[in-house]
Amino acid sequence: MTIQSIPLPKAFRLLNHGPVLLVSGCHNGTDNAMAAAWGCPLDYNPCRLTVVLDKLAFTRNLIEQSGRFAVQIPVQAQAELVLAMGRSSRNANPRKMDNVPLFRQAGFDVPLVAGCAAWLACRVLPEPHNQQAYDLFIGEVEAAWADDAVFRDGHWRFDEAGDDWRTLHYVSGGQFYAIGRGLDLGER
Amino acid sequence: MTIQSIPLPKAFRLLNHGPVLLVSGCHNGTDNAMAAAWGCPLDYNPCRLTVVLDKLAFTRNLIEQSGRFAVQIPVQAQAELVLAMGRSSRNANPRKMDNVPLFRQAGFDVPLVAGCAAWLACRVLPEPHNQQAYDLFIGEVEAAWADDAVFRDGHWRFDEAGDDWRTLHYVSGGQFYAIGRGLDLGER
Repeated sequence: MTIQSIPLPKAFRLLNHGPVLLVSGCHNGTDNAMAAAWGCPLDYNPCRLTVVLDKLAFTRNLIEQSGRFAVQIPVQAQAELVLAMGRSSRNANPRKMDNVPLFRQAGFDVPLVAGCAAWLACRVLPEPHNQQAYDLFIGEVEAAWADDAVFRDGHWRFDEAGDDWRTLHYVSGGQFYAIGRGLDLGER
Repeated sequence: MTIQSIPLPKAFRLLNHGPVLLVSGCHNGTDNAMAAAWGCPLDYNPCRLTVVLDKLAFTRNLIEQSGRFAVQIPVQAQAELVLAMGRSSRNANPRKMDNVPLFRQAGFDVPLVAGCAAWLACRVLPEPHNQQAYDLFIGEVEAAWADDAVFRDGHWRFDEAGDDWRTLHYVSGGQFYAIGRGLDLGER
């Protein structure tokens, strides 16, 4: 388990298959993170993504203030944590983050949730109309990392890494699916 | 296998877990469809979604002309078809759609790809800046349907329906993952 830097033109592969995300931000020393199912790649190069952040979300305010956020990709071992981070808001629960293990990468003042499969550090590409009308934020990815336990040489290794490392795909009401078996049609 | 209408406030569940999509359109009697990995829910009610459509895509032009499109959710049994519909453009291959089975639902002049798990008929919510700058389209869902072989009573039934009905989650270079096992944390 070593965190490897991912070249930006390949970073879309980290979320291309539609996993649920954790979105984190920091402003004036306050860290927070939330679960977000509605995130998606937007471009390869520059590497960009979209994420929907409700106006009530505490994390959204941190992101609007700082202009920075991180998207991370949690795994099956974190399913309870992900559900809790989607259901609890720091607005109502100031201690929401007490038991969430965070770390930082040098040069990026944004909290990263430990134990995830991958992390993407983003800056907000300001689009006030999208943010106001649709709660839609565009992030330009400035750096990306993945744990080589499950993502190596530019590819996910779900079928080798063990079920704890499978990404989570959210439906609603506490119902997830783990990502399943690989189908490689690349050579046909 | 019966196609059931899905209430619009629950239609986001059809794509919430991040499957690869087929996007179809029609203008002046010409039907086309393409694979698209970059689609995502945007709102519950009204039910809206985003999808990224490259300027080179033949289907994009049909959608811009007609203001209508459909998003459908293909399954493992269609993996070869999905890959072919992502790799081949009607610009280069006028017969691209010859072997793609299509049908229509009354009242919606947009082709639907038979054999998928679910279909969402959308109208374009015009946002010219997003469309030009980011290839990002917003669709407002006007109707949704699912095959009750795999989606019943508002929930996916992947663990009961057989592997052919598992949704596809695309990485790149012909590499997919099928959706895997369910984790229901709803009661905790």
